[in-house]
Amino acid sequence: MKFEDNCIFCKIVQKQAASSVIYEDSSVMAFLDIRPANEGHTLVIPKDHYEGILDIPSELLGKVHKVAKNVANAVKLALNADGISVIQQNGRAANQEVFHLHVHVIPRYNGQKMKSTKELQTMDYAQLDVIANKIKVCI
Amino acid sequence: MKFEDNCIFCKIVQKQAASSVIYEDSSVMAFLDIRPANEGHTLVIPKDHYEGILDIPSELLGKVHKVAKNVANAVKLALNADGISVIQQNGRAANQEVFHLHVHVIPRYNGQKMKSTKELQTMDYAQLDVIANKIKVCI
Repeated sequence: MKFEDNCIFCKIVQKQAASSVIYEDSSVMAFLDIRPANEGHTLVIPKDHYEGILDIPSELLGKVHKVAKNVANAVKLALNADGISVIQQNGRAANQEVFHLHVHVIPRYNGQKMKSTKELQTMDYAQLDVIANKIKVCI
Repeated sequence: MKFEDNCIFCKIVQKQAASSVIYEDSSVMAFLDIRPANEGHTLVIPKDHYEGILDIPSELLGKVHKVAKNVANAVKLALNADGISVIQQNGRAANQEVFHLHVHVIPRYNGQKMKSTKELQTMDYAQLDVIANKIKVCI
């Protein structure tokens, strides 16, 4: 596999760093964001390290989004979401913070605005695992 | 093909409504947003009418994102963007406005915040066609 030193998502893929996993196959992984915009905010990533949309191979990008679809469906069911935002940022200019491609799948609710980055709070893994378990049974 | 009455994007696909086209194949189309967050803001859609991520077939969603990758690359090159935002909203709760799945590909620049919906202004097709021509030569 293609890993990068000092990349937190590469460490998560290799199980050298903790995460609340929703889904995993040979090339794609989905886990909960530790600073969620809403409960159930999931990140879908390729296991191999690619920085963003410009350097990931097309086929793998397609696979990542197929998994994002399944995650979106499970998150909506598990958490009674009214809508789903799918966001993938590329470059500091677009507020990308971790330079390993990731697709945000965020449950949305009627009448609720998206939180700004400053409003986000870090959750602990015990809390996240409870949510992950709810989503996993719907995937 | 699978069209819906009163869907503006279905009308664009059928060439019953105007658009500044960037790319088109048998199943996917990309054209400029008439109320762009930035010059070059492109929408990538399946030609068949699907409302969002929950009802589009996985394979077609994968194709849409492969085209979004090519568009992202062309937009970055043509307009010297520093980053690219890829956004796909599902449901009114997520501010989806046209209920035909669309992936926003938005060029981003260092130090520039994303415009809010209220700040967006409608451009005319003559202006859009000039930008579309710049992007098309890079695709």
